[in-house]
Amino acid sequence: MNQDFEFYNPTQVFFGRSAMENLSGLLSLYGKNVLLAYGGGSIQQNGVYEQVMQVLQACGKKVTEFSGIMPNPTYQKVLEGGAIARSCGADLILAVGGGSVIDCAKAVSIAAVERGDLWTRHWLEKRPVEIPPIPVGTVLTMVGTGSEMDGDAVITNEETKIKTSCWDYCLYPKFSILNPEYTYSVPEYQMVSGIFDTLSHIMEIYFSPEDEDNISDDFAEALMGNIIRSTAAALKDPQDYTARSNLMWASSLALSGLLAPSKKEDWEVHQIQHQLGAYYDCAHGMGLAAISPAYYRLVCPYGVPRFKRFAINVWGLDPTGKSDLDVAMAGIDALAAFIRDSHMTANLRELGIPDDSLLETISSTCNLRQGGYYTLTREDVLQVLRKSF
Amino acid sequence: MNQDFEFYNPTQVFFGRSAMENLSGLLSLYGKNVLLAYGGGSIQQNGVYEQVMQVLQACGKKVTEFSGIMPNPTYQKVLEGGAIARSCGADLILAVGGGSVIDCAKAVSIAAVERGDLWTRHWLEKRPVEIPPIPVGTVLTMVGTGSEMDGDAVITNEETKIKTSCWDYCLYPKFSILNPEYTYSVPEYQMVSGIFDTLSHIMEIYFSPEDEDNISDDFAEALMGNIIRSTAAALKDPQDYTARSNLMWASSLALSGLLAPSKKEDWEVHQIQHQLGAYYDCAHGMGLAAISPAYYRLVCPYGVPRFKRFAINVWGLDPTGKSDLDVAMAGIDALAAFIRDSHMTANLRELGIPDDSLLETISSTCNLRQGGYYTLTREDVLQVLRKSF
Repeated sequence: MNQDFEFYNPTQVFFGRSAMENLSGLLSLYGKNVLLAYGGGSIQQNGVYEQVMQVLQACGKKVTEFSGIMPNPTYQKVLEGGAIARSCGADLILAVGGGSVIDCAKAVSIAAVERGDLWTRHWLEKRPVEIPPIPVGTVLTMVGTGSEMDGDAVITNEETKIKTSCWDYCLYPKFSILNPEYTYSVPEYQMVSGIFDTLSHIMEIYFSPEDEDNISDDFAEALMGNIIRSTAAALKDPQDYTARSNLMWASSLALSGLLAPSKKEDWEVHQIQHQLGAYYDCAHGMGLAAISPAYYRLVCPYGVPRFKRFAINVWGLDPTGKSDLDVAMAGIDALAAFIRDSHMTANLRELGIPDDSLLETISSTCNLRQGGYYTLTREDVLQVLRKSF
Repeated sequence: MNQDFEFYNPTQVFFGRSAMENLSGLLSLYGKNVLLAYGGGSIQQNGVYEQVMQVLQACGKKVTEFSGIMPNPTYQKVLEGGAIARSCGADLILAVGGGSVIDCAKAVSIAAVERGDLWTRHWLEKRPVEIPPIPVGTVLTMVGTGSEMDGDAVITNEETKIKTSCWDYCLYPKFSILNPEYTYSVPEYQMVSGIFDTLSHIMEIYFSPEDEDNISDDFAEALMGNIIRSTAAALKDPQDYTARSNLMWASSLALSGLLAPSKKEDWEVHQIQHQLGAYYDCAHGMGLAAISPAYYRLVCPYGVPRFKRFAINVWGLDPTGKSDLDVAMAGIDALAAFIRDSHMTANLRELGIPDDSLLETISSTCNLRQGGYYTLTREDVLQVLRKSF
């Protein structure tokens, strides 16, 4: 652990089939007014909405609903939620859904107490949140973003076509209720999209210095190995509790801060996908899957020892008689095969992008980052996008 | 993750060479009166006492010292600290040292605010702590117990010869400052004792059901692998920062709650060592090392698949052509070899126990636990102790 770090994750997690039983006790710690944040109708279809409402009513809470939160939640929606939270005097925001709902709820928790141009202040200039936001609790129904156990709120500004994150310790949910059974009804496409999002979070951290023997990398490999096994099991039987529970917990841990100590972190794949997402409304995880193999093939020669380690420790490849670069590249081939075998989108065409006309625009607006083994030029981004087509 | 669980670890960790730079900011969150808890002279010899005092004075704190905390801190010492904390009106207890100092400080944080027979209430009957204790912060100078990032306070009652723990969320340190360089001056004997304590914490959890594919076991193996490598490196060069930092972080994570989800946990080795420690004042980790091989050889036949997995995944043993039991037992042989190669005590005689006259007394007073693959009888405990001699 050669680089200094801070580790702090104040979210209280209740996990398992009986996790919801803790909700009433948790609610007793907050005031009467609850803003219930959710997306579309999926939580009404799978019964989670009714379960949560029953607990809220039994606890005598005054519930105001804030619904219709979209995938890739917009700044406009955040301002709308902030106004509702203010007018109902929310003491707690209860976010029921996946990462988009939780991210939006976190942003609303700021918008409810702070006026002015929040977008510039917290999302663009990344200034710390100084006015204590309204506490947020979550009930997770979709796996992938890790928002239930981190301090990130990713929001899209539709006017400027920028999707970016605000991070603060005060944005960690106070509590998160994680019942893997709630994810059974998520369609396969969304399930594997979330899985690749988790895997990508781990790879963005893992494929970066420091390269000294450290626990963060060991944990990353342990998580990736588990995800690979659990994905196969969940595809075979979506109601495999062991598999779904591993995938849920892996997703929460991936961005919990646990893998970050001593790592510089890359996040270039997410940068490219964020710009892709600003022009094409696609499932985030599938966008990541479509561009990851091409990206890593381009970067691999600059970090051969790490990619070789990935091939051997994560994919169990035998390095005997191969050059280091060949082993390293074979690891990326294994990743690409996993993407295909797991019914994820293997390229931008499968993602529904009709032609390559916008790829230059995307590459020219993409935020280039340092941190990984190689810092992309705009020409490199374009090459990654073209090879992903 | 088949068993339901709760995960919550509210300790804020600052790790690395510059970790102490965060102390003044942290102190500003608490009132003027600080109780400085420490053990003997080691923090004066290695300069940590002076560093901490300089920060405390620069922050204008009124410091009261509570020193002389012994290894295996006693309930009597806790009551003494409670009285001092009350009389100086401590707003914060700053524990500077290893696990004994931190455990004692946590117990004092209760004793300062609560009257009566705390021992019976919290240590024997394990009743929750209801009066908010005084906040505790730590500066760690010795690795092994994990007390810097957990809610345990292990205390010894000298009169009744019972060493046991009180656990509560409110006993987690508010912050912990972890600088691996502070451990450079720890003598080798204490260093490897702490390392085996960490390893034992992991094994106590790992060698227990549930046995389904789960992340806790994957993380446990990742940590054990890192500890094995880092121990060899630290023995070769005690100032190997990479090795010492891995050992420090591994120790904190081992009892952070991260390895516990979905596991029943065993803790029988610790139970036996606690009774051993009540009669013979030995280094805790060395006591664990002396009895672990015999204990695991006895238990192994009841959990062959798990011990086989340990042999392969942690020690890299090749199972080809061997029976499952043989592979499993070879893993325990590898553990025993590690104990010898790492200059740990390999048996009770090396621990300084002159004869086997008290082994029956120890086995007859030992607290027998369920949770692992096999629940020991008193006869089994005696057999483990005799085979460890």
